[in-house]
Amino acid sequence: MTLPETPKGTGEWLRGEGPEVDIVISSRVRLARNLSGYRFRNSCDREENRRINDTVRSVVISANLGEDLIYYELEPMNMIERDYLVERHLISKEHAEAEGPRGVAICSGEALSIMVNEEDHLRIQYLQSGLKLSETWDAINRVDDLLSERLDFAFSPTLGYLTACPTNVGTAMRLSVMMHLPALEWTKQLRKVFKAVSKMNLAVRGLYGEGTRASGDFYQISNQVTLGKSEGEIIAIVDSVVRQIVRYERKVRQALLTQNRPNLEDRIWRAHSMLKGARIISSEETMSLLSSLRMGVNMGVVKDISIKTLNELFLETQPAHLQKSHGREISVRERDVMRASLVRKRLAEN
Amino acid sequence: MTLPETPKGTGEWLRGEGPEVDIVISSRVRLARNLSGYRFRNSCDREENRRINDTVRSVVISANLGEDLIYYELEPMNMIERDYLVERHLISKEHAEAEGPRGVAICSGEALSIMVNEEDHLRIQYLQSGLKLSETWDAINRVDDLLSERLDFAFSPTLGYLTACPTNVGTAMRLSVMMHLPALEWTKQLRKVFKAVSKMNLAVRGLYGEGTRASGDFYQISNQVTLGKSEGEIIAIVDSVVRQIVRYERKVRQALLTQNRPNLEDRIWRAHSMLKGARIISSEETMSLLSSLRMGVNMGVVKDISIKTLNELFLETQPAHLQKSHGREISVRERDVMRASLVRKRLAEN
Repeated sequence: MTLPETPKGTGEWLRGEGPEVDIVISSRVRLARNLSGYRFRNSCDREENRRINDTVRSVVISANLGEDLIYYELEPMNMIERDYLVERHLISKEHAEAEGPRGVAICSGEALSIMVNEEDHLRIQYLQSGLKLSETWDAINRVDDLLSERLDFAFSPTLGYLTACPTNVGTAMRLSVMMHLPALEWTKQLRKVFKAVSKMNLAVRGLYGEGTRASGDFYQISNQVTLGKSEGEIIAIVDSVVRQIVRYERKVRQALLTQNRPNLEDRIWRAHSMLKGARIISSEETMSLLSSLRMGVNMGVVKDISIKTLNELFLETQPAHLQKSHGREISVRERDVMRASLVRKRLAEN
Repeated sequence: MTLPETPKGTGEWLRGEGPEVDIVISSRVRLARNLSGYRFRNSCDREENRRINDTVRSVVISANLGEDLIYYELEPMNMIERDYLVERHLISKEHAEAEGPRGVAICSGEALSIMVNEEDHLRIQYLQSGLKLSETWDAINRVDDLLSERLDFAFSPTLGYLTACPTNVGTAMRLSVMMHLPALEWTKQLRKVFKAVSKMNLAVRGLYGEGTRASGDFYQISNQVTLGKSEGEIIAIVDSVVRQIVRYERKVRQALLTQNRPNLEDRIWRAHSMLKGARIISSEETMSLLSSLRMGVNMGVVKDISIKTLNELFLETQPAHLQKSHGREISVRERDVMRASLVRKRLAEN
C-alpha cells in the first residue's frame, strides 16, 4: 500500500502557532484504553489481535471523530511508510516495528491519532502546537467519550483504567510536552533542570520518546504517575513545571543576548551558513543546525526565515520523509546528499 | 615610528600570478652575506652592530637597487609593526624579536628585502609569485653584484661565502618554495611526500619558516645543503622536486573531482559558508577555511571569488595586519570578531 500523499505543511506539529511556541513545540495527551472481554495485547494470539483490530477499526471509522479520518493498516506497509508515520509522531517506533494485525487512525489534520494494538488495544493521542494542555485534554476527552459510547473499556472502580503495563493504570493518561531548549543545552544547565523535573516525578525523553536521543535540543517532558491523581491535577503539575522551564530558557536566551551576543550570533549565523553551504549532511547535524537557527529566528537574530519553514525542515529532512518524497529506498550516503540539497532549496525560497 | 602605509594588494606574495600559481604560491631565494673585517653578528657588541647597520644601510640606500627602496630601522618599531613585516614575509620572526641596531631594506614592490644584522650581517631575499626559481635567482644575483661592488663580503676560495652558522657556508643560498597542498593534506598523503622530499636533502617547513606550524595547508620546501653544489645544481634539484609535488597535488585534486566530487564540494562550500557566516573566528580557522576555498576556486568549483582576494585575506586576517589596520593593539577576542567582519565584507565585495 502507499500512504495517501500528506500535503506539505499540514500536521499539527508543524504549525508553529500557539502559546509559548518559541519554546514549546507541542502539547500531547495520550490515553491508554483496552477492551474488556479480550486479553491484553501481549497475551493475544494473531486471531485475537485481528478481532480487536477489526472491532476498533469499524468503531473508529463510524464514530464521527472527524471528516478527514483515515484508518491505516500497518501490516501491509513497508518500513519507509511506517517510519514516515513515526517521524510525524503519529505512531510509536514500537508500533512501527511490531508484528500482527494493527493499525492507526489519523484525523483532524494529524492532531488526533489512535494506535490500535500497540501495547494497549487503543492508544489515543491528541497533539496541538504550543502549550495547550487543558485544551488538548478537552479535545481528547471528547474523543474518549465518543469511543466509550461504542466500546466497552476495561475499567476498575478502584484502580481506574486497566492497562497492559501497570505503570499506566489509573488515569492511563500521559501528557508530553515537547520543548526546544537550545540555550539551556548550550549553557550546560539542562542537567540541573532535569534533576528538578525528575524530583517532580516527571520524565524527560528525547525527540521520539522513550530511549531516543535528544536531537536538535528537543526534549519531551511527561508525567510518570498515572495513579492516585486526577487528570486535572496531573495537567496542573506538568503545566506549571513546563512554564518554569520556559521562563528559565527565556532568561538564559536574554542573558546570551545581553552578555554574550557575539558568541550567540556566531553560533546562529554559522548554523545558517552551514545549512546553506553543505553538500552532504547527516540527519543529526541537520537537526542540530536547525535547532540553532530556530533559536536565532525566535530571538530576532535571523529575520528572513519563518519558524514554519524550519519546523517543516525538521520533519522533511528525516530519513523516511526523504525516501517517501523520492518514492524509493535510498542509501544513507545518497540521503545525506539529497538532504543537503533539500535544505539549500528550502532556505533559498525563504 | 609608524610604517608608511603599505597599499593593499601590493606585495609580490599576493599577486597570484606566475607558473603553477594554483599550487606554488611563491619562489624565494635568500643569500647570507657577511662583511669582512667585522665579527659575526652573535659575537658583536652593540657598537659593532651599530657600525655594521650604518655601513650596510648607507650602501643599500645608494646602490640603485630600486626606486621604491625604504630602509626601516627595527629598534624603534613596536611589536605590531615588526610582526606586520613578519606576516608579509619581509623579515624573519628572529629578526623581529632580536635586540640591537638592525634593519630591513624593502624594495621592488616587496619582492626584495634585505635584513641587516639578522643571523648574518646581510640576509638578501628575493621573492616572486609562482614557480620561478631561475628568474628569482637571476634577480637576486643582480642585487648581490650591485652590493658586492660596494661591500667587501667575507669569502673563502675553498669554502665559498662564510656565514655565522656553518650550515649556510658555501653558496650561502637558500631556496624556499611555498606550496599550497590541501588535496595531499586532505587525503593524508603529505607524510609520504615529505619523506621523499627529505631523502633529497630538502627540508619542509610551515608558513612562517623554521619551527612554525603549517597553517592553511601551506608548506615551504627548501634546500638544506649549501656546500659542494653550485647554485644552478641546487636550483635544478628544488625545481624538479617541486614540480613532482605539483603533479602529485594536481593528480589528487583530479581524483577528488572524478571520484569524490560530493565530498569535495561539501568541504569547499562549507568553508565558503563558514567564512561568510562566522561572527567570531580565529586566525587558525580562517587559514584553514581560506585554504579549502582557495582550492575550490583553483578547481573551478567556486567561480565568483578571485585568488587575489583570497591571497590578500590570508594576509589581512593575520593578527598584526588586523591591529595595524586599526592602528592599535587589540585583544585576541576582539581580533576574532574583527577578523570575521573583515572576511564577510571582503567576500561580499567579490
